[in-house]
Formats: sequence, C-alpha cells, structure tokens
Amino acid sequence: MRRRTWKRFHPPGTSPGTLSVPAAAEGKGGLTLVTYRGDSVSERHLAAVAEVPAAPAAGENLWLRIVGHSGETLGSLTARFGVHPLVLEDVVNLGQRPKVEEFDDYLFIVVDVLRFGTNGGLEEEQVSLLLFENLLITIEERESDLFKLVEDRLRSGRGKMRTLGVDYLAYALVDAAVDHFFPALERTGERIDEVEDELLERPDRQGFEKLHGIKRDLLRLRKATWPLREAVAKLTRTDVRQVREGTRVWLRDVYDHTVQIIDIVETFRDMTAELVDLYLSSVSTRLNEIMKVLTIIATIFIPLTFIVGLYGMNFNTQAGPLSMPELNWRWGYPAVWVLMLAIAGGMLWMFRRRRWL
Amino acid sequence: MRRRTWKRFHPPGTSPGTLSVPAAAEGKGGLTLVTYRGDSVSERHLAAVAEVPAAPAAGENLWLRIVGHSGETLGSLTARFGVHPLVLEDVVNLGQRPKVEEFDDYLFIVVDVLRFGTNGGLEEEQVSLLLFENLLITIEERESDLFKLVEDRLRSGRGKMRTLGVDYLAYALVDAAVDHFFPALERTGERIDEVEDELLERPDRQGFEKLHGIKRDLLRLRKATWPLREAVAKLTRTDVRQVREGTRVWLRDVYDHTVQIIDIVETFRDMTAELVDLYLSSVSTRLNEIMKVLTIIATIFIPLTFIVGLYGMNFNTQAGPLSMPELNWRWGYPAVWVLMLAIAGGMLWMFRRRRWL
Amino acid sequence: MRRRTWKRFHPPGTSPGTLSVPAAAEGKGGLTLVTYRGDSVSERHLAAVAEVPAAPAAGENLWLRIVGHSGETLGSLTARFGVHPLVLEDVVNLGQRPKVEEFDDYLFIVVDVLRFGTNGGLEEEQVSLLLFENLLITIEERESDLFKLVEDRLRSGRGKMRTLGVDYLAYALVDAAVDHFFPALERTGERIDEVEDELLERPDRQGFEKLHGIKRDLLRLRKATWPLREAVAKLTRTDVRQVREGTRVWLRDVYDHTVQIIDIVETFRDMTAELVDLYLSSVSTRLNEIMKVLTIIATIFIPLTFIVGLYGMNFNTQAGPLSMPELNWRWGYPAVWVLMLAIAGGMLWMFRRRRWL
Amino acid sequence: MRRRTWKRFHPPGTSPGTLSVPAAAEGKGGLTLVTYRGDSVSERHLAAVAEVPAAPAAGENLWLRIVGHSGETLGSLTARFGVHPLVLEDVVNLGQRPKVEEFDDYLFIVVDVLRFGTNGGLEEEQVSLLLFENLLITIEERESDLFKLVEDRLRSGRGKMRTLGVDYLAYALVDAAVDHFFPALERTGERIDEVEDELLERPDRQGFEKLHGIKRDLLRLRKATWPLREAVAKLTRTDVRQVREGTRVWLRDVYDHTVQIIDIVETFRDMTAELVDLYLSSVSTRLNEIMKVLTIIATIFIPLTFIVGLYGMNFNTQAGPLSMPELNWRWGYPAVWVLMLAIAGGMLWMFRRRRWL
Amino acid sequence: MRRRTWKRFHPPGTSPGTLSVPAAAEGKGGLTLVTYRGDSVSERHLAAVAEVPAAPAAGENLWLRIVGHSGETLGSLTARFGVHPLVLEDVVNLGQRPKVEEFDDYLFIVVDVLRFGTNGGLEEEQVSLLLFENLLITIEERESDLFKLVEDRLRSGRGKMRTLGVDYLAYALVDAAVDHFFPALERTGERIDEVEDELLERPDRQGFEKLHGIKRDLLRLRKATWPLREAVAKLTRTDVRQVREGTRVWLRDVYDHTVQIIDIVETFRDMTAELVDLYLSSVSTRLNEIMKVLTIIATIFIPLTFIVGLYGMNFNTQAGPLSMPELNWRWGYPAVWVLMLAIAGGMLWMFRRRRWL
Repeated sequence: MRRRTWKRFHPPGTSPGTLSVPAAAEGKGGLTLVTYRGDSVSERHLAAVAEVPAAPAAGENLWLRIVGHSGETLGSLTARFGVHPLVLEDVVNLGQRPKVEEFDDYLFIVVDVLRFGTNGGLEEEQVSLLLFENLLITIEERESDLFKLVEDRLRSGRGKMRTLGVDYLAYALVDAAVDHFFPALERTGERIDEVEDELLERPDRQGFEKLHGIKRDLLRLRKATWPLREAVAKLTRTDVRQVREGTRVWLRDVYDHTVQIIDIVETFRDMTAELVDLYLSSVSTRLNEIMKVLTIIATIFIPLTFIVGLYGMNFNTQAGPLSMPELNWRWGYPAVWVLMLAIAGGMLWMFRRRRWL
Repeated sequence: MRRRTWKRFHPPGTSPGTLSVPAAAEGKGGLTLVTYRGDSVSERHLAAVAEVPAAPAAGENLWLRIVGHSGETLGSLTARFGVHPLVLEDVVNLGQRPKVEEFDDYLFIVVDVLRFGTNGGLEEEQVSLLLFENLLITIEERESDLFKLVEDRLRSGRGKMRTLGVDYLAYALVDAAVDHFFPALERTGERIDEVEDELLERPDRQGFEKLHGIKRDLLRLRKATWPLREAVAKLTRTDVRQVREGTRVWLRDVYDHTVQIIDIVETFRDMTAELVDLYLSSVSTRLNEIMKVLTIIATIFIPLTFIVGLYGMNFNTQAGPLSMPELNWRWGYPAVWVLMLAIAGGMLWMFRRRRWL
Repeated sequence: MRRRTWKRFHPPGTSPGTLSVPAAAEGKGGLTLVTYRGDSVSERHLAAVAEVPAAPAAGENLWLRIVGHSGETLGSLTARFGVHPLVLEDVVNLGQRPKVEEFDDYLFIVVDVLRFGTNGGLEEEQVSLLLFENLLITIEERESDLFKLVEDRLRSGRGKMRTLGVDYLAYALVDAAVDHFFPALERTGERIDEVEDELLERPDRQGFEKLHGIKRDLLRLRKATWPLREAVAKLTRTDVRQVREGTRVWLRDVYDHTVQIIDIVETFRDMTAELVDLYLSSVSTRLNEIMKVLTIIATIFIPLTFIVGLYGMNFNTQAGPLSMPELNWRWGYPAVWVLMLAIAGGMLWMFRRRRWL
Repeated sequence: MRRRTWKRFHPPGTSPGTLSVPAAAEGKGGLTLVTYRGDSVSERHLAAVAEVPAAPAAGENLWLRIVGHSGETLGSLTARFGVHPLVLEDVVNLGQRPKVEEFDDYLFIVVDVLRFGTNGGLEEEQVSLLLFENLLITIEERESDLFKLVEDRLRSGRGKMRTLGVDYLAYALVDAAVDHFFPALERTGERIDEVEDELLERPDRQGFEKLHGIKRDLLRLRKATWPLREAVAKLTRTDVRQVREGTRVWLRDVYDHTVQIIDIVETFRDMTAELVDLYLSSVSTRLNEIMKVLTIIATIFIPLTFIVGLYGMNFNTQAGPLSMPELNWRWGYPAVWVLMLAIAGGMLWMFRRRRWL
Repeated sequence: MRRRTWKRFHPPGTSPGTLSVPAAAEGKGGLTLVTYRGDSVSERHLAAVAEVPAAPAAGENLWLRIVGHSGETLGSLTARFGVHPLVLEDVVNLGQRPKVEEFDDYLFIVVDVLRFGTNGGLEEEQVSLLLFENLLITIEERESDLFKLVEDRLRSGRGKMRTLGVDYLAYALVDAAVDHFFPALERTGERIDEVEDELLERPDRQGFEKLHGIKRDLLRLRKATWPLREAVAKLTRTDVRQVREGTRVWLRDVYDHTVQIIDIVETFRDMTAELVDLYLSSVSTRLNEIMKVLTIIATIFIPLTFIVGLYGMNFNTQAGPLSMPELNWRWGYPAVWVLMLAIAGGMLWMFRRRRWL
C-alpha cells in the first residue's frame, strides 16, 4: 500500500488537540525508562507513564522511550508533564513537517526519517522528542533499529554521552535520524547512475519509468529535508533555553549535515532533469534515424516501382507507332535496367551529399 | 457557470467604499445572534443589526452571523460599529485575497475556502470576520455547512470554547475554514494517482485533459493558499491586540496547517509537472514504436514489390536475347522466390542488429 | 504603429534634465486650473503656468491639469514651483517605470496605465502627478477619459472629495488609474478562455498565434504592474510627509488592488503556459493519430499489393513445372483471396492487441 | 576573434596585485590632463603621471584621462596617489564585473559598456574611475567616442558641469556609460521584432540561429547589467563620502536607468523564450501538415493500387469458373472504376469528418 | 573510478568526531614545518606533531603542512593544539562543503578545489586550514602542486608574504585555491564553444553526449562554488578575530574572484541550456526536411503508380465496348504519359505554392 505523502487529518471543525489514534496503531505502545548518570545506566519497562519518578536523583538523567501510539499513554503525558494537547495531536498525526517548538517547560522536536525499506520503496518514520530539564521523552511510530547505535553507545558508556545532559542525548538521536538519510541518498545516487547507463545504451520506456520513480522519491526527500534544515537551525539558535551552550557546537555539525543532504538532493534533481532531457533527445534522435532509413529505401524504390509498373501496362503495341514500341525493342529491357540503376545511384549520391547517410 | 478567478470590480474612478451588491445576491441576508458564556448559550434571529445589544453583559460573548450580502444590513454595520466603508467593500467584492487588517477597534479577517462542490468542480466561498472586544461578526457569502462542527461544539459546550473569548471562537472558525482544504487536497491527490495510473497504462488525450483540469485546480488552490498563510502568520504576531496571548498558540497550529497545505499543493504541482513529462514522453515513445513497425514492414516489402513489378513488365521476350529471358527459364520463378526471401531475411537481420526489433 | 516597450532616450552623454519633447507631441498642451473647497468648485482654462495664484486662499485646494507635453509649459514649472529638471525629463520620456520620488516640497508620482484601445491592442498612457501642500499638478500624455469619473465626483460634490486635501485627490486619481487595469484583465481572461476552448476543440496554428499575442500582452502588463505595486507601497509608508495619515488607509486599499492585479497577471501567465503545453501535446497527439491511420492502412495493404504483384508476373507457365503453376490451378484465384483476407485479418488483430486501434 | 566572456587571469598562486599588461595592449597609453573651474577649462597632454600638480589651485578641478593600459603609467599611480595594487590589477584585467569600492582617499568605480561594434557584434569596453577629492582619474581601455558628448559639454561650459565638483563629472561619465546601453537595447529590440516576423512567416533554421545569436547577446547584456545596478546603487548610498549630497539625486536618476535597462533585458529574454516556443511549435505544426498531406494521398491511393494490381494478375481465366471471371464480364472494367471512386470518396469523407482536411 | 559527488559517511548513530580514515588513505602522511620571519625562511620535516615548538620565537611564524590523512597525526592535533574532534572529522571526510568555522583559538577553513586531471575529468581536492595566532596548519588530501607558486614566493622572499602574519599566508593559500578554478572554467568554456560549433554544423548524438558531460561538470562546479563564496564572505567579515584588518582588503579581492567564478558558471549553464534547445530544434528541423523529401517523392509517384497499375489490368478488351478500350487506341499510350506529366507538374506546383520546396 502506498503511504500518503500528506498528513492525516480529521473532519474540519473538530476540536483541536483531539487525539484520534487510528485503530490499527492503537495498543502497541511499549514504555521503557532509561536512567543514566556518569557511571551507570539502567533500563526498565514500565506499565504506565505514572511510574516515571517525579524528580530524578541529582546527576541522574531520564530517557522515557514510548514506542507506538497508544491513546492512553500519550494522554497521560498531558496529566503528568503538562504536555500541550496540540503537541500530542502532532505526535499522532503522521506525516508532520519536521519542526521544533518551544514551550515553557520543554522543547518539542519532530523529525521524519526516510529510508529505503526491505521492499525497495522509501519508508517514512516519524520520531517525536520532548526535551525537559533532566528528562527526554521520545515517541517512535513503531519498533525499529533507528537508534540502535545510540543505545549501544549509552549502554557501553563509550564517549561522553552519559556525562552530558539529556540535551546531548537528544542531539545524538537527531544526529542519528539525520544520518539515516545518507544511505538513502547513496542508494538514490546508484539508481541514477544505473538509469543513466541504461538510457545512454538503450533509451526505452522502462528506463524512463525508473527515472520517473526516482524523481518521485526525490520529491519526497526534498519535501522532508528542507523543513528539517529549518528545524535543526532553530535548535542551534542561542535563545533555545533547553539546549546547553556546549551541545550547540555538535548541533551545528548536524546542521551542516542537513545542508549537505539538501545539496545532494538538489544535485540529484538537476541530474535527473538532465536525464529526462537525455532520454527525450535520444528518443527523437532514434526516430530520426529510423525515418531516415525509411525515407531512403522508399524514395529509391518508389520511382523504380513506377517504371516497372509502366512497362507492365497492357497497351496494344499494334495500335500505333507510339503505342509502347519500347516493348519490342531489342535493347528495351536492358535499357530499363540502366535507367533504373542510374536513378538509384543518383538518389544515393544526393542523400550522401545532404549528409543523410 | 464558471466562477471567475479574479475579483468583481466597479467602473474605475467610482467613489471607493461604494457598496454595489449584485442584485442576485441582495436580500437573502439572514441575521443570527449567538450569546454565550461559560455555562449557557442562546441563539436568536434578528431583523436588523440595530437589535444587537450595545454592550454585552459581563462575561458574555456575542457572535453575530450574517449570511448573504444585504446592502442594508452591511451598511448598518458602519453606523452601529464604525466599520470602515472599505472593509464592507472588501466583504462584498468576492474573490478577495485572504488578508488580515487591523483597525483601532476591530480586526478584519477575510478567508477564502475552496471545496469540491457536488458537481465535481472547485467552489470558492468567502468568509469575512470582524473581531471586536466581546463581539465577533461573521459574514458568509451564502448558507453552507462550513462551520457546522464549530456550531455544534459551541452548542454542546464540549471543549473550552464557551469559556474562552471571542478571539478563540474566531480561531476555531479560521481553523475550520483552513481544514476544509484538506479534503479538497485529498481528492486532488486521488485524482493525480488515478491519472498517473491511466497515463502509465494508456497515454491518451483524455488522461491529458484530466491532468490539465487538475493543474487548473492546483493553480486556484495555490493562488488561494499562499496569501492565506501570510494572513494567518499576521494573526499569530504578538502585536495584534485583539488576539489574546493564550489563543496565539492555537493559531500557530493553524499556521502549521497552512504551511502543510502549501507544501502539499507545491508537491502536487511538481507531481503533475512530472506527469506531463511522462505523458509527452509516452506519446513520443508510442509514435516511435508505430513508426518502427511501419518502417519494418514497408522497407521489407518495398523492394519485393519492385521485383514482382519487374517481372510483370510486358517486354517482348522474342525481341532479343537480353529481353527478359528470365521469364522463360525453367527455374526463373523459384529463383525469384529465393531472391525475395533472401532480401527479406537480410533486412530483418539488419533491423535486429540495429536493435530496432 | 507598434508602441515601443521601452523608454525614449536621447544620445548618451547628453546633459541630464534636457527636455526633448518630440515635435509631434509639442504644442498640444492645455492648462486647466480647478479650485475647490468644501462647498464650491470652479474650473478655469489658463494660458500659462504663471497665472496660477501664488498661494491659495485658506481652505482652498488647487488642481492644475496639464494635458499634452508642451516644452514651454513644463519648463515654467521649474521656474514657478521649483520642480527638479530630472522630474520633467521623466514626465516627458514616456515609458517610465511607475515610481514615487520624494522631494523637499513635493512628491513626484508617475503611473502608467495599460488599456485596450479601440483597435484591440494594449495602449499605454503615462500620468505624472506632482503633489504639493495645497496644490496638485497632473500631467497627462494626451486628452483622454481616464479620470472622467473622478472629475464628476469632484464637480458633483458627492463623497468627501472636496472636504479632504489634495492628497486625497491624488489618491483618487491613482486609484482610478489602477482600477483601469481591471477591464484590461477581464478582457484578457476572456481571451484566454476563448483560446482554451478553441485549442481544446481544434488545435491549430491560429489559436497558437492568438495565444502568443496574449502572452506578449501579459508580458507588458507584468512589466507595468510590478513596479506599480512598489510605487503604491511607497505611498502608503508612514514617512511620506505629503500624504496625510487619514489618506493612508485609502491608499492601502489601492495597494491591495495592485497586489490583486499582479496575482491575476501571474495566474494568467501560468494559465497561458498551461495552454502552450496543451497545444503542443494536442499537436503531437494528433500527429500520432494520423500516423496510426497511415500505418494501419499502409501495413495492411503493402503485403497484399505484393501478393497481387506476384501473380502479375509474366513467367512462362510452360517453362517448367514450378514456373507459376498456381496461375492455372482451378482454385488458385479464390485461394489468393483467402490468403489476403487472412493476412489483413491477422494484421488487424495484432493492431488491436497492441491497442493501436 | 571572439572576445571572452570571462576575465583574464594569471597562473593561480601568483602574487596578487601583479600588473601583467598584455604585450599587445602595452605602450599605447595617452595621458591628458583637463583643468577646469567655473569660468575656464584647459587641456594638456602629459608625458608622465608625475606632471600632475600636487595640489590643484583653489576652486580648480582636475580630470586625468589615461587611455590604454601602460604598465609604467599605471604603476606610477600607486607611487603618486597611493592607489592600491589590487585596484590596478582590476583596471588591467578586462572583463571585470562593474563594481564600486571605497578606499580611504578615493572611490574606485569600474563600469563595463556593451555596444554594437561596426562588425555587428557586441563589444565590451571597460572604464575605470578613481574619484579623489578634487581629482578624477579615468582609465579607458582604448581610444573611443564613449565620452564625446561629456567632453563637449565640459568644453562648451553648457550646464552646470564646470561649477560642480569632480564627483559631478564622475556622475556625468557613469551616466553616459550607462546610457550607451540604450542604443544596444534598441538594436536588440529591432532584431527581435525582425526575427519574430520572420518566424511567423516562415519558420526555418536561419531564423532560429539568429534567435540563438540574440539570446547569446542577451546573456552578455544581462551579465553586464545586474552588477551595474548594484554598483550604481552603492554610489547613491549616503555613506559614500566622496559623493556630495547634491550629486546623489542625479545618481538616483542613473540608478533608475539601470533598473530600466534590466527591465528591458529581462523582457527581451522573456520575448525570446516566447519566440523559441513559437518556432518549435511552428516546426511541429508544419510537420503535422506535411504528414497530413502524405497520409491522405497515400491512404487514398494505397487501396486503389491494390485493386488495379489485383486485376493485373495473370490467373488463367480458363482454369475454372471462379478464376477471375470478372476480366471477361461486359461491365467489369467500369465496375472497377465505380468501386475505386467509391473507396476514394469514402476515405475523403472520413478524413473530413475527422477534421483532417 | 568515478569520484562520488557526496560526502563519505559512517553508519548513522556512530559517535560524532570518530576518525575513520580509510585504509587506502592511511599512513601516507608527511609533516613539514616551515618557520619564517621577515628575513629568513627554514623548512624541516617532522616525524610527529609533538616536535612543533610550543611557542614560536617573537616575530616568527610557523606553517605546519600535513599531507595525507594519518589518523595518528591528526589525532595528536587535538592533544597538542586543542583542535575539536568534529573539525578533524570534517578534515577526514572528503567532499565537505567549503566552510569557515570560528573557534576560540583558531579558525577552521575547508576549501574544495576542482581541476581537470590528466585523464580529462574533473578532480576534487580538499584542503583544510587551521589558522592560529602565529601558526597555520594546512592539511592536504594528497601530494600535489596546488600551492607550488605560493611556496616559491615564500622561499624567494618576493612580495610581502614573509613580513605579514600567518593570516596573510592563509589568504595566499585560499587565493591560490580559488584561482585554480579559472583554468577549469576556461577549459569548460572551450569545450562549450567546440560543442556549439559541432552542433551548428552537424547535430548528432555524439555532440549531445559531450554536452551532457559538460552539464554534469557544471553541476559539480556549481555545487562547489556557491558555498565557497559564502565561506570567503565569512572570512572578510570584520568580526573574525583571527584575520587582521590589513588582510581583509586582500580577502575582498578573493571574494570578488568567487563572485566572478559563480557568474561564469551560471553563464555557462545558461549557454548549455541554450545549446540543448539548439540541438533539439536542429533534430526536429532535420526530421522535418527528411519528411518533406519523402512526402514529395511519395505523393508524386503514388498517383502515377496507380495509373500504370490501372493499365496493367488484364480485362478482356473484347468483352464489351467499355472494357478498357484505351488499350487499343492509337494515342492511348502517349495520352497516359501526358496525363502523368500533368499530375506530377501539378503536384510540384502545389508544393511550391505551399513553400514546401
């Protein structure tokens, strides 16, 4: 089934902030609470949001992971942490533009990752982050390996992840999300190269339809990455309180990556536009060539066929001296051959002179 | 009848602020006054604007709904509430760009909704809002179900609509108006998918004309939504006095929707541009194929037809030794067949080598 | 004669501010002085600029109308009112971009109106306004009905025109000038609709040339309206001293009109671009169809013609047992018919399978 | 020889400010010193820059004209007036973008003029101005009539040129340089009109190649005029010390001219894009027409030729009752004619119904 | 092997600042330390970064050149000079966008040079600069002649390079890097001219594929030069502490060069777009011509062939008075000739009248 390229919506006029989790998505939510500090990390599955401790111990950071969209779980976020209903609406309505919104207590970040799925098509995956003082809540659309490596780093204690605050963790997650675009871009680049080779060798319908598919994917990538850049840029701005000064330099690096991604997407778009031109010109060149062969063969034989038709007429040679006397001439038949060869030769000479051969 | 895509105008040089309500629209105006507070809501039909109470009771909010453009009713708005004549001119002249204008006492908002009508075509509906301190005046072009759900929410007392001021009501109406674009977009998306399938399977004139229709609709949607975004952005700005701080966060959500809508419209435009390319390339590919078949059949048979014409000539075989002696050879006829099969085979081999088959 | 789309110029290096009124335009200047106050209005033809009173009576406003470009009359404006020579150069050199320039004593406004003339072509008309404290000088290119309705309003005393200052009069004139674009746009919209119908029904050269004409007109409209918007925007800015606060709200309305006009022009441009696509695709679709018919008829008859040619060969049936024995078979002729019908049928079946029919 | 559209460069890594005057250009430099005040003007040829007086007499202005690029002369400008080496590099390296650079003592202005040369091609001419307090140095690429009229005005004492400072002279020169674009634009406009007429009447290769030439010229004009506008805009800014307040209003006029020029260039570009469309559509329309004629003639005659071929078969009418008995029927031949006329008529009727005729 | 147009990346989620030097690049690093002051310059090969003196003697400047990416060497930069790990990541990950980043102690500059390699293809070369107070560290991707001339100037003591600080040296290197684009552009310009000549003379597939190659190169150049301009612009800004006031004027010159380069690239892009149009129109013009010849020959001979076929029918002239009596007429054969010549002449006349010949 084709995933829509636009967001889910409810009937116009519905009360805003209404949580309408689709039945299919409901009930698969899983809660994990990761508590970490400089020297330790512990993981615990929760049954409900209410189990999250009111205030973490000093020096401790909490990461609450919510997987799947359970109406009940999400609803309790408002009660427990004062999350605005509109935020939850955005969490649930997939296909959001990536964005960053500041609230008094927390920062709301939505990121949309595009990856090539196992079936070869681009798949979208929305991740929402709520960044509080010592608490990071992430809400993922479904179970996936998006943040596998970040989890491993946190567990293993490599790098400075544990010693820095939750804003650094948020950065690491956004960074991982953004980096997931690179394999998708590399794959797209390979597909473009393949199609180019194909079109240069044999411009046909199939290659063009592949190209059409690539262009559609690029449209989606483009639509996903431009707002992503804006969102990350907003994170790096100095007036965002939830992000510490030290984390900003790392976010600038993520920002550079988004710019890079956009650069690549735009370059790919230019390249595919190029290939469309190439394809169309190939098709018309090919038509040209075929027409040339037809023209040459036809124009040579049309007069000859007329001549042989001429001497196939049944005029009575006895009717008068001008009534097809050629038929009875001794050299009539060879003369006709000479005439025909002369015409064919003349035509060929003319074609060559006009550079049609 | 096709609705014009540009605004109604009066003869250049006419006094500005002249109310020229077209005869057809005149006289169908209906006035309803909705009075609501936290715990109650009452609705009353009015005969004239003058019946609106001078000052609402404390804690009470008034919503004056005017349906249809009656010159008299609108005129009395100036007398009663000091509405600027130019505002009324804008209310009456349909096809306005969505906009927000600040005046000393009130805020003037015009929104244009595009929906697919029952006849399958896009229909425009202009709504004007005048937002005073405790009073909201809305002027709708005609009776419609645009705000059905908002009315219901107000009547039922669900949500916080009654407890918040008229600016929240104004927000709810603008939100509903903006949300009406989503079904139109979804329908357009479906039409694009349909046309794409059609064009991929069988590229013909009909599909292309449908595509042309979609592009025209997209032009109208685009023309409607860009200024809409500007207008909503203006509403969210902090220097608009009539909108309370608390309402602004909800308006930011509407703003996000308008951005989303524009995103979708632009993506659709890119997709239709893609489809035009696809169509044109399909047409030329198809022409190519047809030409190939013609060329192959023609180039094979043209020489053969020449040969059979040749031996249909009536040269007198008695005239001399070189006068078509072939006709009397024992193996003449079979030899001609062999020659013709060789020519046809050679041609086919050449075509295959050139990859034309 | 085609009116140039760019401005008149003098040899490069000429002293700036040189008044080179073309001989053809010279000497047709007419001067009218309109003096008005709240309760009265009087009109007087003047022989020279010097007759304008030095200072108007209190509460009196003066409107000096100059029609036609007389070098002498314009020259005396510098002497009498201190108008900068460059301003006069701009007045005389037609084809100016609409603009607003502030000087110490006065405001200089140039507006270019495009209307459809009686001969069906777009005609340009430049109007210059010099707005002083209590004096408005307008310089029109030629006698015309541009400001007919404004004059009438001033004479009749309807509206507030007489009671407000000359800046309101200037506004009224600019408003009238801008409004003159609407009929031109409406006419253009009708032409586009006509051409669209024509092209959908029968795509031919003529329709395309009409479309080309419309596009040229749109280019001119566009070139005229973008700077017009800028100019009017400048007028509405609060730092323009010559325009009173109260007049600004009316000018904002004119500004909205210019935005509307640009919107329409851009929409029309998109629509004509659409129509070009439509036309080109129609032409190639049509070519396709014609080619198909040719191909089908040709490919069916070419083999048949070969067959009948075959049995028209004059091989001597007596020469040997394989020398066209078919000619003497009892069922030879009917068998050939059967063969030919089978070939034709097979071809038609193949065409239908490939969806070429 | 084609003039490059990009700037001369030296090997990467060369010391900046290196003066590498090409041998061809070297040594043709001529120095003229013009000394003027309100009531007098004198001209003197100099042998070297050192002859310029250290300080001009009170009220006197100096204009040092350097024609041609002599390495020695330019080099001495640094020694004598402290001109930065990079400035001289820019003076010598032709093909500079027009620009204005401020230094402590002087203003550096480079302007590039494009004119149609005697051979019909666009020719570039670079002029550099160094504007000091009472001294203007101009460096022209070669002897030309660029500033002929300005010189005349200075000599004749017409206008206020002598009474105002060297900044006014600089203005007059820049104005003259900018005005030189107008004849080039007029010529281009005429060429576009010519090509349009040609293409409308007879769309052929030649017209298209002319159009291609015009587009190339427009590319160069565009590349020259956009930075020109920026440069002049910089001159009009109030923070440029070397330009007196009174001169600024004149420069604003030059600025208007550059805007006008860009407007015209952009309009021309749109017009040529239009003409390309027109040409391409004409070509395909024409192909269409030709194909139609071919199709009609071919499709009418192909079946007829089949029929006459049919009755040219040599089946032995004696072989059996179904062996071409038509040949011996009394009305056989007329019946064939009737059949053929019916077929031809039917075809024509079908073509007419499909609007192919 | 084709060099990727996008940056190397590691698995998403990897710890940022991880140095993953590819095995192929590892170990080829070479360290050179250049110590210079006004009157002397000395060069020394180092084994490790640790050998760089902690603080240079007064008036001495240090230039540390690192060639090749050795993980160990780069790693020690962090230890020795406090270089941020992200900076090193950028140094190692080739295909960076050119950029300038400020840190407390140093400025980080990355520049990407595109040159035509010996195999005729564009080759990328990334150079990183770390500008400290008295120390400049450069890291080059591989041994090359990029900075040959700058080294020579430093060694020879020509110009002011030795007397100015390391910021001037950095400028000189960036200038050299930027100037390396000019030969690449010149070469591209020549290729465009060649292809234009080719396409004007004989529009074929090969020329178009060359054009395609040029466009791909231009895409890369464009992608490289736009961010380069931004980066250099950032260097010229007054708030960059590491760059001295005096060096800024030289950097402004580099900035002008980058603008020039972009101008040229954009002009080239316009020119190649032009050439694509030219090519496509040439192809269709050519097809047109070929079709015309085919049509003319075919339409002339098709009716004639019909006529000769007609009189090749074997109707028995004895069967009746209307059964092909022409065959026995005395002037039958000559009359057929006259008829055929009349038809051919009429056709030719018609073609000429329609301007098809």
